[in-house]
Amino acid sequence: MLFTTLTLAAARQKLAERLCPLPCEEVPLAEALGRVLSGPVQAREDVPGFDRATMDGFAVRAADTFGASEGLPAYLRVTGEVLMGQAPNGRVGPGEAWRIPTGGMLPEGADAVVMVEHTEEVSSDMVAVLRPVAPEENVVRRGDDVRAGAVILPAGRRLRPQDIGLLAACGVARVSVAKRPVVGIIGTGDEIVGIEATPAPGQVRDVNTPALAAAVCAAGGVPVVFGVVRDELSALEEVLSEALAAAEMVLLTGGSSVGVRDLTLRAVAALPGAEVLFHGLAVKPGKPTVGAVVNGRLVVGLPGHPVSALVVFEFLVRPLLEPERIDRVPLKVRLGRSLRSAPGREDYFRARLVVENGVLVAEPILGKSGLIATLSEAEGLIRLPLDVAGAEAGEMVDFFLL
Amino acid sequence: MLFTTLTLAAARQKLAERLCPLPCEEVPLAEALGRVLSGPVQAREDVPGFDRATMDGFAVRAADTFGASEGLPAYLRVTGEVLMGQAPNGRVGPGEAWRIPTGGMLPEGADAVVMVEHTEEVSSDMVAVLRPVAPEENVVRRGDDVRAGAVILPAGRRLRPQDIGLLAACGVARVSVAKRPVVGIIGTGDEIVGIEATPAPGQVRDVNTPALAAAVCAAGGVPVVFGVVRDELSALEEVLSEALAAAEMVLLTGGSSVGVRDLTLRAVAALPGAEVLFHGLAVKPGKPTVGAVVNGRLVVGLPGHPVSALVVFEFLVRPLLEPERIDRVPLKVRLGRSLRSAPGREDYFRARLVVENGVLVAEPILGKSGLIATLSEAEGLIRLPLDVAGAEAGEMVDFFLL
Repeated sequence: MLFTTLTLAAARQKLAERLCPLPCEEVPLAEALGRVLSGPVQAREDVPGFDRATMDGFAVRAADTFGASEGLPAYLRVTGEVLMGQAPNGRVGPGEAWRIPTGGMLPEGADAVVMVEHTEEVSSDMVAVLRPVAPEENVVRRGDDVRAGAVILPAGRRLRPQDIGLLAACGVARVSVAKRPVVGIIGTGDEIVGIEATPAPGQVRDVNTPALAAAVCAAGGVPVVFGVVRDELSALEEVLSEALAAAEMVLLTGGSSVGVRDLTLRAVAALPGAEVLFHGLAVKPGKPTVGAVVNGRLVVGLPGHPVSALVVFEFLVRPLLEPERIDRVPLKVRLGRSLRSAPGREDYFRARLVVENGVLVAEPILGKSGLIATLSEAEGLIRLPLDVAGAEAGEMVDFFLL
Repeated sequence: MLFTTLTLAAARQKLAERLCPLPCEEVPLAEALGRVLSGPVQAREDVPGFDRATMDGFAVRAADTFGASEGLPAYLRVTGEVLMGQAPNGRVGPGEAWRIPTGGMLPEGADAVVMVEHTEEVSSDMVAVLRPVAPEENVVRRGDDVRAGAVILPAGRRLRPQDIGLLAACGVARVSVAKRPVVGIIGTGDEIVGIEATPAPGQVRDVNTPALAAAVCAAGGVPVVFGVVRDELSALEEVLSEALAAAEMVLLTGGSSVGVRDLTLRAVAALPGAEVLFHGLAVKPGKPTVGAVVNGRLVVGLPGHPVSALVVFEFLVRPLLEPERIDRVPLKVRLGRSLRSAPGREDYFRARLVVENGVLVAEPILGKSGLIATLSEAEGLIRLPLDVAGAEAGEMVDFFLL
């Protein structure tokens, strides 16, 4: 078996190429937040369906107000009033004006609205306009928000509150979205006991499966935990097959020792149709990561150290679950103290984020990658790229919130 | 009634001062992601509970390796092997070494681990150490991750995957968290019809209540929609009372016209025990916002224009639901085109975020605040502060992802 070490970006790419599209399901709009559109959504009609006032005032013919001023107002006859939610029962003729509330439907004939603040009521049926308005001023035209037939949201959009609002405006009460990806999680390790257990000497509690399950949830997936398996090939093969039958993607974790790493790799490779895509990442922490595909389903063997497992999840697995995420653009922050790294490897450092003189400063937290408390203390991760040997205090570096 | 216009920050502060603490509930760790700790969590025991190897290799007394080199190795007798998950049944004496896997428990007598890569097996019971190790090298000491009695997470922490991992490591299977705040949402407006309806001329569909419900969900709250109420004082008072009985906070929306704004204010002010905190914000969009407190529960009257309502939600309401959020530190991005604003008012502009030559550039999307499509097109909002009259293309400005 050829062992291929890849950069994080290359490994992500290799896995992404093998991702199968998720099946669709229809959900009511009220449950669509955070879901991913399975296809583009088209508007069936203009929104708004009519010209609307955006201010309280008077619907007028703009030309009737040209040249108006406080000294020489334009006097218009008030011949009607627009009621909210109703079509006006008449039209605005030359020299005429209708009272109109914000959101009211512009009567025929009118092409602008004069704000009430720029008028003076001379009598119950006469208004003085003190400033001119241009055509379309204080008016939203029919279809200004959305044109009938337009694609309002593209396929692949993860729906935010404002997208829900737009769909509501267009009368889309149910949407077709991708099913949430089911992600199987398998822990391994003879030394691992459950959260509720009291570890005997030599034993530790399971950190990775609960942390990864939470990370999968946070990425919009559905975690299914298959428990912690003994370090034994046949047991691992069995659970792995079970997980692959139930999940779109399977994460294995634990087994940081050489022997156990081999076990993971052997168990994956032994499955019918398995193809190992890489074995080893040029990243610290996270080197002992395995990527494979088995009959169209991805298997990622994550490192056993909790910090390593979560860092690799964040930059390798999460982008596969949320391919549309645009906010992985790093923050640029000032480095609080100098850091060394090895060229040829991407380095991630846990860090606290503090504000000093209005500038974001990342203060590295040093500590072995087995120490989960160091990641919990961190607001995120500093990244030093492949091609540098370190960064000096005061330099601007990439930072990712966790 | 005195009408007080406040800055966004002052209004937020005034509301925050009147927030009542939420009651607690206990949830299993697997459901604790995104929840807020109601009190600090203390560790009951050391984690790990014993000294552990962080590398595969040999547990040794560091002093036995001092001066070792490839030319002149230190020869140690292999007198045992540590098995994963088990306490070693013996000790490492002077001149001795035990095989140990990553994560294995360090035998008594040993104080360091030599990586297997820095050794050579001379025979089955003799190993040559090719490099010296310092005491504690490749070892995590008992309690290095967490000390018994230490506060591992503070009150008010919103739990992330790494926090879940830390709680798991410490055997915290259930956590006490603040209940999710229930937020009542009331729409108003005679022109508003439901999502599924076909609007008649003069009518539009309800955008704000579905969008705000989604925004409340995204902020960890539980939205309860009380429907859309006609523009009528008694109807509004009735629904408002009902909502206040059921929710920690009530959002009213709609009613952008002067008459209807007054209606909202009158309905709120008419409630027994109501105190109006402000009426009007020095922010655009979002000026016609009302803040009040009624018997310890907050009422916020949001503007009726969908963009305005969501902008005010984001910067006034959301921080009340997520007071611990640290990532509202704005991104600093380059402005794509010049913008004007009015001094004495904070201005928010919808914008697309694009990457040009590796730099984030915010391209403003212009459009009236009634147009929800413009907010759906945007990746977020540019902020121009109170005291400026605009910003030039190319300047660095504050940007908030939405």
